[in-house]
Amino acid sequence: MEQYCFGVDIGGTGIKAGLFSSEGELLDKWVVPTVRTDKGKDVLKDAANLIDSKIKEKGLTKAQIIGIGVGIPGPVKDNGDVLELPNLGLGYFNIEEEMSEMTGLKVKAGNDANVAALGEQWKGSGKGFNNMVLVTLGTGVGGGVIHNGRIVAGSGGAGGEIGHLPVGINEEETCGCGKKGCLEQYSSATGIVRLAKKALKQSSKESELRSLDSLSARDVFDMAKKGDDLALEVVDQACSYLGLALAHVAQVVDPEAFVLGGGVSKAGQILVDYTMKHYVPNVMNALKDRKFLIASLGNDAGIYGCARLVLS
Amino acid sequence: MEQYCFGVDIGGTGIKAGLFSSEGELLDKWVVPTVRTDKGKDVLKDAANLIDSKIKEKGLTKAQIIGIGVGIPGPVKDNGDVLELPNLGLGYFNIEEEMSEMTGLKVKAGNDANVAALGEQWKGSGKGFNNMVLVTLGTGVGGGVIHNGRIVAGSGGAGGEIGHLPVGINEEETCGCGKKGCLEQYSSATGIVRLAKKALKQSSKESELRSLDSLSARDVFDMAKKGDDLALEVVDQACSYLGLALAHVAQVVDPEAFVLGGGVSKAGQILVDYTMKHYVPNVMNALKDRKFLIASLGNDAGIYGCARLVLS
Repeated sequence: MEQYCFGVDIGGTGIKAGLFSSEGELLDKWVVPTVRTDKGKDVLKDAANLIDSKIKEKGLTKAQIIGIGVGIPGPVKDNGDVLELPNLGLGYFNIEEEMSEMTGLKVKAGNDANVAALGEQWKGSGKGFNNMVLVTLGTGVGGGVIHNGRIVAGSGGAGGEIGHLPVGINEEETCGCGKKGCLEQYSSATGIVRLAKKALKQSSKESELRSLDSLSARDVFDMAKKGDDLALEVVDQACSYLGLALAHVAQVVDPEAFVLGGGVSKAGQILVDYTMKHYVPNVMNALKDRKFLIASLGNDAGIYGCARLVLS
Repeated sequence: MEQYCFGVDIGGTGIKAGLFSSEGELLDKWVVPTVRTDKGKDVLKDAANLIDSKIKEKGLTKAQIIGIGVGIPGPVKDNGDVLELPNLGLGYFNIEEEMSEMTGLKVKAGNDANVAALGEQWKGSGKGFNNMVLVTLGTGVGGGVIHNGRIVAGSGGAGGEIGHLPVGINEEETCGCGKKGCLEQYSSATGIVRLAKKALKQSSKESELRSLDSLSARDVFDMAKKGDDLALEVVDQACSYLGLALAHVAQVVDPEAFVLGGGVSKAGQILVDYTMKHYVPNVMNALKDRKFLIASLGNDAGIYGCARLVLS
């Protein structure tokens, strides 16, 4: 009897599910919108119903399903305890128990950024590196630490919260988390735009960036690649914070490789080069040769990592 | 037949060994000097001979020894690989295989700071915290990260190298590791004295510290406790770097507790208070309530951790 598993990545806007073979091959995938009702747990029911319907649709039996791996946008402890999911309007619960009851299947859960890291480590750019760190540079900055092939969730599920590493001294603006000087304020897509706008204001240098109606992180990287001086300065600045942050991460968990993901990572080699430029002088000799790679699974990293949770 | 194990902490000046019951009770302990000859591996032979002689002395048989845990002053991979031990004049070798051949016993090895962390987690102040971090504030600053009861050694054994977290921006002096701005330059006993001397030079404030012929980190804390303004400033400064560094650590591995050890930790509550003062504003809300404790096993932490390596 063929065995399968599901990976389910629950996000603020969509629930993404993938059906995997027991060898970890992605066979099919679906997305349904996240419907936020008064009862946050409806999201879990929607996810459970999605799985149930796909099991029927594929003509499978529950005995053929090894389990369901679930990723959620908030801290999850190793035992499945979730303190709260403000995004979904949920308070304390054990997601593994709840979803297992709903589906009659074994459920393992993890934080979305952490499962994405596990996905990249298992089937993406991090393949072959038992110790790696994923940094997701999107609207915010997320991260996940994999040690000996497993997620480092930490005591409260806040392991890998790299976006809030305190790298900015003397920062005056406040991060979404309430602190000042978080990595996210400099190296997320939003952060890069912020730095660019500041640079445009403070500098009198000519720059193609001045001609744009609205400015995106992509514009900054595109112009930098064309040799625009001011854009290069902004890239250097954003990467100086990222390089410093990853130096801290390296001194704590010594990964073999850093994988850069999220929208900003589409910038490619220039992002790798400038980040390494600032990483290398900030780590011990033994850590200077660590690899920097661009993520390869895109938005599927999460469902891959979820599948890995139940297949490992 | 009663079962036992040995914990052996190999340092630059002494080899410390402990005999433990299978329940982890320390039954006896010894120290012999580290003799550094041309052949660094003589140190391993000395350690092996020490074990052999203690087995005989205690009237035990090798069948009664579960194994030997060994701590060494350098990075050790999870598989026992050691890249180099400059302290002992050793190049690449696998310490577990070498010592196992010498003794005919199972050997597990770890970095000295990491095994000390494991010791404190198992039998010291970190007891009950499956996720904790030890910071050793001595001549230098060492550290060890314990996640789910196990050492986070990382890919090259450099996990927990907290002493070289890059916390000092614009530092002009160079750390022993060759970088500038390492935690060790501010929060080790040596670093605190350096900060105190700088403060005495730069400030015209009266201070009892000025009357001392030679200055130690202990003097700084003692004077601070008596209310000496300048000493308090130095304590605050040293702890600002430590608090910031531990904020970084928390964001990466989310420990339940930080245990402060080493000579400087004898300062006690004042060290905890000032470190937390600078830790709290630098971490996410979810991490603000983490515990800060003073280590309790002193120099025995290492042999306890070594024993734990073979008993877990």
